[in-house]
Amino acid sequence: MTYSAPLRDMAFLLHRVLKVQDQDIPGYADLDESFTGAVLEEAGKISAEILAPLNAVGDREGCRLENGVVRTPTGFREGFDALRQGGWTALDCDPEFGGQGLPYLMHTVANEPFVSANMALNMYMGLTHGAYSAIRVHGSAEQKAYYLPKLASCEWTGTMNLTEPHCGTDLGLIRTRAEPATDGSWRITGTKIFISAGDHDMADNIVHLVLAKAPGGGEGTRGISLFVVPKVLEGGARNAVSAGKVEEKMGIHGNATCVMNYDGATGWLIGDLHKGMRAMFTMMNEARLGVGMQGYAVAEAAYQQAATYARERLQGHAAGETSGPAAPLIVHPDIRRSLMDQKAFIEGARALTYWGATLIDRAHRLQDSAAEGLISLLIPVIKGFQTDKGFDAAVAAQQIWGGHGYIEDNPMSQFARDARIAMIYEGANGVQALDLVGRKLGADGGKAVMAFFALVKAECMAHDADPRMDPFTRPLKVASKQMQAAGMYFLSAGMKNPSDALSGSTDFLHLVGHVCLGLMWVRMARAALTGLEAGEDAFLSAKLVTARHYLTRHLPACALHLARIEAGGETVMALDAQAF
Amino acid sequence: MTYSAPLRDMAFLLHRVLKVQDQDIPGYADLDESFTGAVLEEAGKISAEILAPLNAVGDREGCRLENGVVRTPTGFREGFDALRQGGWTALDCDPEFGGQGLPYLMHTVANEPFVSANMALNMYMGLTHGAYSAIRVHGSAEQKAYYLPKLASCEWTGTMNLTEPHCGTDLGLIRTRAEPATDGSWRITGTKIFISAGDHDMADNIVHLVLAKAPGGGEGTRGISLFVVPKVLEGGARNAVSAGKVEEKMGIHGNATCVMNYDGATGWLIGDLHKGMRAMFTMMNEARLGVGMQGYAVAEAAYQQAATYARERLQGHAAGETSGPAAPLIVHPDIRRSLMDQKAFIEGARALTYWGATLIDRAHRLQDSAAEGLISLLIPVIKGFQTDKGFDAAVAAQQIWGGHGYIEDNPMSQFARDARIAMIYEGANGVQALDLVGRKLGADGGKAVMAFFALVKAECMAHDADPRMDPFTRPLKVASKQMQAAGMYFLSAGMKNPSDALSGSTDFLHLVGHVCLGLMWVRMARAALTGLEAGEDAFLSAKLVTARHYLTRHLPACALHLARIEAGGETVMALDAQAF
Repeated sequence: MTYSAPLRDMAFLLHRVLKVQDQDIPGYADLDESFTGAVLEEAGKISAEILAPLNAVGDREGCRLENGVVRTPTGFREGFDALRQGGWTALDCDPEFGGQGLPYLMHTVANEPFVSANMALNMYMGLTHGAYSAIRVHGSAEQKAYYLPKLASCEWTGTMNLTEPHCGTDLGLIRTRAEPATDGSWRITGTKIFISAGDHDMADNIVHLVLAKAPGGGEGTRGISLFVVPKVLEGGARNAVSAGKVEEKMGIHGNATCVMNYDGATGWLIGDLHKGMRAMFTMMNEARLGVGMQGYAVAEAAYQQAATYARERLQGHAAGETSGPAAPLIVHPDIRRSLMDQKAFIEGARALTYWGATLIDRAHRLQDSAAEGLISLLIPVIKGFQTDKGFDAAVAAQQIWGGHGYIEDNPMSQFARDARIAMIYEGANGVQALDLVGRKLGADGGKAVMAFFALVKAECMAHDADPRMDPFTRPLKVASKQMQAAGMYFLSAGMKNPSDALSGSTDFLHLVGHVCLGLMWVRMARAALTGLEAGEDAFLSAKLVTARHYLTRHLPACALHLARIEAGGETVMALDAQAF
Repeated sequence: MTYSAPLRDMAFLLHRVLKVQDQDIPGYADLDESFTGAVLEEAGKISAEILAPLNAVGDREGCRLENGVVRTPTGFREGFDALRQGGWTALDCDPEFGGQGLPYLMHTVANEPFVSANMALNMYMGLTHGAYSAIRVHGSAEQKAYYLPKLASCEWTGTMNLTEPHCGTDLGLIRTRAEPATDGSWRITGTKIFISAGDHDMADNIVHLVLAKAPGGGEGTRGISLFVVPKVLEGGARNAVSAGKVEEKMGIHGNATCVMNYDGATGWLIGDLHKGMRAMFTMMNEARLGVGMQGYAVAEAAYQQAATYARERLQGHAAGETSGPAAPLIVHPDIRRSLMDQKAFIEGARALTYWGATLIDRAHRLQDSAAEGLISLLIPVIKGFQTDKGFDAAVAAQQIWGGHGYIEDNPMSQFARDARIAMIYEGANGVQALDLVGRKLGADGGKAVMAFFALVKAECMAHDADPRMDPFTRPLKVASKQMQAAGMYFLSAGMKNPSDALSGSTDFLHLVGHVCLGLMWVRMARAALTGLEAGEDAFLSAKLVTARHYLTRHLPACALHLARIEAGGETVMALDAQAF
């Protein structure tokens, strides 16, 4: 694969759409265009030159368990070293622990090229960042001092241990036990599965965060506590934790997905006893936004290969021509239609993700509860919608390569296989939809969704005097009304019969996703029009075309989703389980 | 995987919906229910007991090129032998050549379980059937006598050699050459790629059908002729054809996809010189219907595993309950919604495919040109829509398994990876859409599409007096009008600017697909209502629920497709190729 970071689009979003320096979030004033440009250019360079060439290697070689040690693919250590040495692992970490203290937004934006170029390798860093955040918020001062500098630098890496063979989403079922030892530590015993980066040969230590049941916590999720269980104990002894297996997976072969066996391993409580769920899920918004980013970032890589192939592959003739030399694929309307669909989704999702990251910064750096409410509402959409559509986009990009896209000599199959996992992990997309409809929609009396509607309305009305904006705002107004109608349906139907509401949960997640991307495209169109007042610019002109493409060809999906939502649960719930 | 052939649904379609014995097609009168039942039960048994257990083996082991010989996975030869010995390879072949002379419909219906249980293994038989058909229609009497008995029995297998490294769809670009020898044979030289079953160790001979350019034929596809090139020549000498490589692919690992090198190989002309395209494409309707069947047949296998998992996997609680033991996944509305979507697609596609097979029988056995016109119109829809949606269904089934669906120890990843190829081969789905809009729609003055509209109208009107049918016919009437509006758009826009029409080609293919499945569901609902007059029947009651599910939740997609079609090509065609 070849990869080129979309630097112009990134700069456009940061400085023309989000106008980061105009925002009142602490730290944002420093994000001037030359600084962000230099950071992102360097991130793009490492991605293109070091990480992208390792992507196929990781897919082909995978990870192997040899004599109790997990071996990562050739070159992965050197790739990881490039990230570590460049300070990329700690952009938004606390300077107290060796970080650079930049906003979370910059972490997000800088990570995109790494994910596009090599999702599997980037995950070693991503999981570590999650462990860093959990310990930073919930750990004791000693734990922070001991773990955080090593995690910030990725000298040590981290893992999240939730899933067990018999339980995924329903964590109340976990069986891993924690028994108190006399020295204040705990003995952890149990089996965890699907542990990304569970073991590998690229770090001196691996810091496992483990959900386990300690005595006295009661039934279900209430009994769960969070423990830190390092692979290597202080002093250098090996802890009683080991990788029992490396899974063979559909994709992300370069990341070691392990079965982890805890055989009375020594661990220490993080945060309060029996409050493990809360501790684990503090970081959920960031983790899920990161997965939503994977959705479009892998699609971006696939799209780049598809566009190049479409320009170079000679096949057939343009409409109306029947002879002469063959033309490149890109003359064919259906190929262009597919490329435009991919492009419009990717750029819209990028905008939504960056905006989401600013909301997280606003919530954390300004203790802004409105921003916290809004991002909590949007997170299941960013995760679920963007990974569903990101997979579709990767598959569409693969399709442009024809039969060559199905052959593993070429990069396209890997993008589709890698993108597939993002729909599943960090809460399967059906669970995201349930979270949206069953929890987020009605949270705090529906405050967040009302704020969202107000925001969409304000965006549309702001341009009522500008006829150039009409083609952009009109479809968004229609879609926003459909989203409101869906909300009303849930309010009335959900009261009577929850199954009627929940049968439409995935459709609602997609409906909101389209409204969000519609909102982003209106904002981008406005910024592009403003920019064009200064003179012709091919990038900005393309933005306007792409905006209309998304708004006219994709927002009409909202009517379909509304029709399905309003169909309720009758046909969904009618059949006996044995009739399937 | 486990697999159980949907015998009740097959019998319902053959005898209650299509009423095969009432049709005036030669051979159909013999298809009584006990006969078809016995045939399909046996096909189901072989599929469940012999083919399904080999499916994962094929995926895991793949095919290997060893010292010039392609080795198939463990047990594949025995599986193929079971198909050969049972006479399954020649159900609809001519009795003159060892076949059983049954209608093509029976070949299609009996093959479905084989595809569901083991798509990769079934392909060895499927390709051979294609070679049989081409030689039967275009071969000389000597060629028929020599090849057909061996191909009918699959003692020898067949291949189709079209694609070359630099050309897939655009066959006018092929470079493989044929030079006449003095004895009436030809010397074939060139490289063909993506040759399914190109070489393997399960047959004594492999009969390659090869498109090549013979001198004097002119430019483009006009210069192409069709040749038969056996791996082993009469007398036992090896021909100068060999497999240069077995491709590593995303899926169908059990089928050997080969690079075939022809180094002055001896071949014989099939049919007329320079008329190779016509000869190769005579069988296209059958080949594409077969791929359309793969679309839903693999989805059926995936759906069966998903339904079983949803009944057995305990996770979470039903809506409204928050404590007590965990409930099976199938209590969750979003899981049921997904299963119903899969079920409604699969059963609708099965009905469309069977109906399509009766149209092919009608065209061939009654020389019915109206049936020929109608099936030619529907073939790109059956191939393109059913493989797009079949892949989506396999991915949705995989999603129900959560993280376990991503692990190769379980069967779900394979279904998604296998299903992916059907969108690409036998004419990529974008090419199907182009065929539909650019060729089939306007063929013969639009006669076929007019006949299709008349047929939909008649089906709806036939039930105007029956209020029970109203919930079924109403959505179909709306969708049919939307299809007509799309047709009108193409008629006007296509005249002015072909790109406006072709930018909507994939949307039109999907729109027509929904109308076709809507028509099938109306027919099935009618048959189910009739059947229920004789008394309660859970299968028939489920049919009515599933019909309403498809018609109310999926037919509204037609409005979305129409909106996209009517958006035309402006945003699609606007950008410079370098702007992607």
